[in-house]
Amino acid sequence: MAAKGTPQRLADLAAYLGGELSGDGDVLISRVASLESAGSGEISFVTHARHRTALDRCRASAVIVPQALAEATDTPRIVCRDPYLAYARIAQLLDPESRPAPGIHPSAVIESGARIAADAGVGAGAYVGYGAVIGARSTVGPGTQIGDGCSVGEGCVIHARVTLYRGCVIGDRSVIHSGAVIGADGFGFAPDRGTWVKIPQTGRVVIGNDVEIGANTTIDRGALDDTVIEDGVKLDNQIQVAHNVRIGAHTAIAAMTGIAGSAKIGRHCMIGGAARIMGHITIVDRVQIAATSFVAKSINEPGNYSGAVPAAPSAEWLRNAAWLKNLGKLAARVKDLERRLAAVRTDNDGPTT
Amino acid sequence: MAAKGTPQRLADLAAYLGGELSGDGDVLISRVASLESAGSGEISFVTHARHRTALDRCRASAVIVPQALAEATDTPRIVCRDPYLAYARIAQLLDPESRPAPGIHPSAVIESGARIAADAGVGAGAYVGYGAVIGARSTVGPGTQIGDGCSVGEGCVIHARVTLYRGCVIGDRSVIHSGAVIGADGFGFAPDRGTWVKIPQTGRVVIGNDVEIGANTTIDRGALDDTVIEDGVKLDNQIQVAHNVRIGAHTAIAAMTGIAGSAKIGRHCMIGGAARIMGHITIVDRVQIAATSFVAKSINEPGNYSGAVPAAPSAEWLRNAAWLKNLGKLAARVKDLERRLAAVRTDNDGPTT
Amino acid sequence: MAAKGTPQRLADLAAYLGGELSGDGDVLISRVASLESAGSGEISFVTHARHRTALDRCRASAVIVPQALAEATDTPRIVCRDPYLAYARIAQLLDPESRPAPGIHPSAVIESGARIAADAGVGAGAYVGYGAVIGARSTVGPGTQIGDGCSVGEGCVIHARVTLYRGCVIGDRSVIHSGAVIGADGFGFAPDRGTWVKIPQTGRVVIGNDVEIGANTTIDRGALDDTVIEDGVKLDNQIQVAHNVRIGAHTAIAAMTGIAGSAKIGRHCMIGGAARIMGHITIVDRVQIAATSFVAKSINEPGNYSGAVPAAPSAEWLRNAAWLKNLGKLAARVKDLERRLAAVRTDNDGPTT
Repeated sequence: MAAKGTPQRLADLAAYLGGELSGDGDVLISRVASLESAGSGEISFVTHARHRTALDRCRASAVIVPQALAEATDTPRIVCRDPYLAYARIAQLLDPESRPAPGIHPSAVIESGARIAADAGVGAGAYVGYGAVIGARSTVGPGTQIGDGCSVGEGCVIHARVTLYRGCVIGDRSVIHSGAVIGADGFGFAPDRGTWVKIPQTGRVVIGNDVEIGANTTIDRGALDDTVIEDGVKLDNQIQVAHNVRIGAHTAIAAMTGIAGSAKIGRHCMIGGAARIMGHITIVDRVQIAATSFVAKSINEPGNYSGAVPAAPSAEWLRNAAWLKNLGKLAARVKDLERRLAAVRTDNDGPTT
Repeated sequence: MAAKGTPQRLADLAAYLGGELSGDGDVLISRVASLESAGSGEISFVTHARHRTALDRCRASAVIVPQALAEATDTPRIVCRDPYLAYARIAQLLDPESRPAPGIHPSAVIESGARIAADAGVGAGAYVGYGAVIGARSTVGPGTQIGDGCSVGEGCVIHARVTLYRGCVIGDRSVIHSGAVIGADGFGFAPDRGTWVKIPQTGRVVIGNDVEIGANTTIDRGALDDTVIEDGVKLDNQIQVAHNVRIGAHTAIAAMTGIAGSAKIGRHCMIGGAARIMGHITIVDRVQIAATSFVAKSINEPGNYSGAVPAAPSAEWLRNAAWLKNLGKLAARVKDLERRLAAVRTDNDGPTT
Repeated sequence: MAAKGTPQRLADLAAYLGGELSGDGDVLISRVASLESAGSGEISFVTHARHRTALDRCRASAVIVPQALAEATDTPRIVCRDPYLAYARIAQLLDPESRPAPGIHPSAVIESGARIAADAGVGAGAYVGYGAVIGARSTVGPGTQIGDGCSVGEGCVIHARVTLYRGCVIGDRSVIHSGAVIGADGFGFAPDRGTWVKIPQTGRVVIGNDVEIGANTTIDRGALDDTVIEDGVKLDNQIQVAHNVRIGAHTAIAAMTGIAGSAKIGRHCMIGGAARIMGHITIVDRVQIAATSFVAKSINEPGNYSGAVPAAPSAEWLRNAAWLKNLGKLAARVKDLERRLAAVRTDNDGPTT
């Protein structure tokens, strides 16, 4: 099969995926595209029979379809169990490598004792601190700061304008997007007669292999022990991870979620956007939390959790919100009704006895 | 009238606004100021008759007032229909240009094939990637990265320390504040036996004319098709716009709002701070959404929507929140009361027949 | 006693804290550590008698304990009134100074008229604008931009990759973490026939002494008057402070909280994470606001306030949320029951008279 980043024969793609080819296997595919926009030389995909109408209109050179749609089109196609996963794999295969060339840009500043692999890349204006290590094939984007003593593994992509504070550790093949700040001080202050005494944050941030961290996400260093992000964790943009949090392997968390100090999140969890996780709680493995939910106490059973309050037309919402502020009173009125109705029944039952 | 950024005669300002002058038109105005702090050489404004007391105390050299307050002061004044808009225009007129001088700072890094207009400015330590285009009179702040193949139109202000990933497009006269990240990868992963396979994000971010984007806001590139911000959109700070979102022209969104993937927001909408918009929904034109609301499904009618839950003294809130967790049970008790009361009435009505 | 950042005798630490020494005062302490991980040469602390089990297992060389646990261990110890505060002070004492060396890195860009104290430090690739002032012993991290005319006091730590827009003022001993943006334009636009006219933001951000500002926090400049952060305020990560907000001295605010324009927050307040404060309201001194609460109107009395809606298993939550959308109807049914029951009682009481 052809090299990564170059056009591929459909038959080769089918073999690569372990899918079943239907139609012309010699069609050349150079890009993935959406059902609506795909054209010549492009492959699209359908995950579900309900998208059949869009499939009918699709002008792609080839499509990936589930078994249920194996015969639903004449377009050359790959039939497979999981078209979405197949699409991910083909998109990776066709994606041209856009990594910066290896080597250290002349404008980068490398402090003494830093060790940068010969095939690693350090971009314009980047900074690599004293004793920091950048592993083989890893790239450090322009304007990124790698603090003193940090360790970045092999095959990582640290995009432009990221900050790693001193002593943080990143595993292999991890990706960190622009604006992320890894290892800033946790929010720790002791009260002292009306003022705050700062508690030095002496722990680190330790990030595993195959982790992805979104743009402008912040992960604070531990107060004493480390903040830990295990292997395969995927964090979206603008997430806040406080000091001493631990996030279990292969957990995925959508944008704007906040996790307060010392919370422990299990493995294989999925957390929706803008969720809020209280500090010092534990969430077991395989928990799903709906977007915008506020998790105030530990979750000890796998499953789905939610606390989302949906919006409504304002006039309607205001009527409900007024009662929301008076739920205790409403409940008291119900209790009073129950008491009074019981009395009525007694009075009433009386004569009939 | 005098040059932009220099003091102006009040009569010239009145003519510029198309407002009516009352009092001495020769007063020289060099700055706008608030009613409380304004002094000599400054102009302030009143939007509403209820601010009349503050107007009485105001020591500005001139004021802008609505028709209802035309005779409410002896201070030289401009009477006009919309004093807030008039204030905006005068503030723009008096604001000295603080743009960096045109030209490329010697410490900036410009890659091959980049085209930078002769009167554009590129600040210290900025980076302009391969084949990127910077239009006439646009400025790129210090430490900002413009990715390979990006296109920035004319008259834009890209402030310090912004990141544009490869291939993004910005129209004319748009403003992007520090820390914004435009075009990072959308959050797209396909599950594969307990791990996540990354889906390359091959779309772009396309931003129109006259758009303003706040500090530390993130706008992800599309998965396949583009993420689109139409003309005149105003985004505040720390907003998250996920992949394949479209925001319609002249919509304004306040800080910390999150918009999940593939949501389509109409034109002329106003969205309050910290709102959350679910993915794959559509919001029509001219919708107003209150701060902190969670929009979980499409909105098909213009109008006001809300889902804000206001805080209360904790003791009071806890009483209500306890019932919030038991609303279903409370409703069941009401239903039971209704059933029992119906029975009572039957018993009761019996004897009277 | 030994120099800051070097090992200390336990007896010296006890004297420094004004605590009572029990056991061997000659033990040398070089680091603080958690109860679980502490070992030889390390000191740990216990705040409360309920941690006694962990204390029993602790292998630290010394511990700080409250009076109630004075005799609960044989480990050499310091007994004092507030072990958490004592820990903070000892951690500061033992923390090695990790500040960058004074002096201006050759790759930094210093514009004309900037005044940088001889013992201040400016990191690689940093930018200090026209007329800006950096006070004694302050450090400016790599890649940080200090705008024209800014003033940074003495002993400040501005970490890597911070942006201060023009004219902002920072007091003494303040700390600003990476990615923070201070002084970007407030979100001010006047509507004009379906489009928005930008209102130049001509105020500044004025920050007091001993303030700490977290990673990726944004504080907008005032529209006309200044945005003000008073002495001793502690702001966590990803907080948004809009234009013309004032935050009173020694108030601490946890991550992801948003404060809308012109809100005034009192002194000695504590605000939990992801809280939302409406614009143009006032919160008096000594108010505590629970995490995730939405403060929609002024708070005039000190005390605790909350509006947090906790998550639950989704099936349970959906039952409650369905009624949340129909609270007004539920309340109407209760009212109807009350009316009908009153009628029943009348009927019922009738015969018994």
